Amino acid sequence: MILAEFSITPIGAGESLSEYVAECLRIVRESGLPHELTAMGTIIEGDWDQVMAVIKACHMAVRKRCRRVSTLIKIDDREAPPGRIRAKVESVLKKLEQA
Amino acid sequence: MILAEFSITPIGAGESLSEYVAECLRIVRESGLPHELTAMGTIIEGDWDQVMAVIKACHMAVRKRCRRVSTLIKIDDREAPPGRIRAKVESVLKKLEQA
Amino acid sequence: MILAEFSITPIGAGESLSEYVAECLRIVRESGLPHELTAMGTIIEGDWDQVMAVIKACHMAVRKRCRRVSTLIKIDDREAPPGRIRAKVESVLKKLEQA
Amino acid sequence: MILAEFSITPIGAGESLSEYVAECLRIVRESGLPHELTAMGTIIEGDWDQVMAVIKACHMAVRKRCRRVSTLIKIDDREAPPGRIRAKVESVLKKLEQA
Repeated sequence: MILAEFSITPIGAGESLSEYVAECLRIVRESGLPHELTAMGTIIEGDWDQVMAVIKACHMAVRKRCRRVSTLIKIDDREAPPGRIRAKVESVLKKLEQA
Repeated sequence: MILAEFSITPIGAGESLSEYVAECLRIVRESGLPHELTAMGTIIEGDWDQVMAVIKACHMAVRKRCRRVSTLIKIDDREAPPGRIRAKVESVLKKLEQA
Repeated sequence: MILAEFSITPIGAGESLSEYVAECLRIVRESGLPHELTAMGTIIEGDWDQVMAVIKACHMAVRKRCRRVSTLIKIDDREAPPGRIRAKVESVLKKLEQA
Repeated sequence: MILAEFSITPIGAGESLSEYVAECLRIVRESGLPHELTAMGTIIEGDWDQVMAVIKACHMAVRKRCRRVSTLIKIDDREAPPGRIRAKVESVLKKLEQA
């Protein structure tokens, strides 16, 4: 199981990108994988092939409408129980309270 | 006003990083800037110099304890009213409901 | 055809990473895809599935030896003739000379 | 001394970005810091404040001409002699030959 954050940026397609992000979020939701939308990207949890298939589908959906697309993917791969989108944040907050 | 997401990774300091993230989150909180902790990084809003001063302080706090540190910073700079950490997500969700 | 830069960081595996990078470079070379090793990552050119298969193989090779791995992938996807690893740099240098 | 790779992407400013990259490269050259232009970004070496001043100048030069700019910065901070833009690549190639 990996955690991946990705963001897809159409280049030369105007200043507002929320329409494209919405289309990607729809694809992510349909995948059924745990995910979270943030102001800077989308975090998704699954195994490598599942996650990469979703990111590819999002990238290609944007690429179909734009001649140039820049995509950034950051992966955190660690043997850990699922549910890390929440667990990682909670682990930090707990450490902060203990200090 | 920029929006920046950053993550600071100590290299060779063991597998668990939440202790370091907690120290950085404490620095971010003391800055008073709007921020959000996610599973993959910390998002912070402010002008360039404010935001970069906070990220530098976090980086140096980790660097003091580790011999090698890898830091990733992603900036979204756009003329827009403050409060973008929430506003960007809401704008996407609204687009999705309309579709 | 996409251009992708990737870097794979083993966490908690010591400070020197060149041994891991060497192993990845060997995998990239065996793929036969155009590539370039830089001080901050490896750039590779091919279609999405080719490139992602190589990056997955590199990531998994490192993951087999380390309990936590952080991987960053940045993709530039644009309809353009192959050979972009060189062509993009040359295009910038040409613009600079003309100015 | 840190090593930083950065890339600055104007959003909604057309598909070709080499003009903007050329302007940034001019600023980097004037800084006098060791650097390398790659197909995916610019690598620069110096202390934190030097490097960040150059990246800010580049970002602002692009921002002046575009209403939205996305900038990515990746930092590798390690106690090591200067000249790491070359030394890191050479260290990997040496490991590969030994294997």
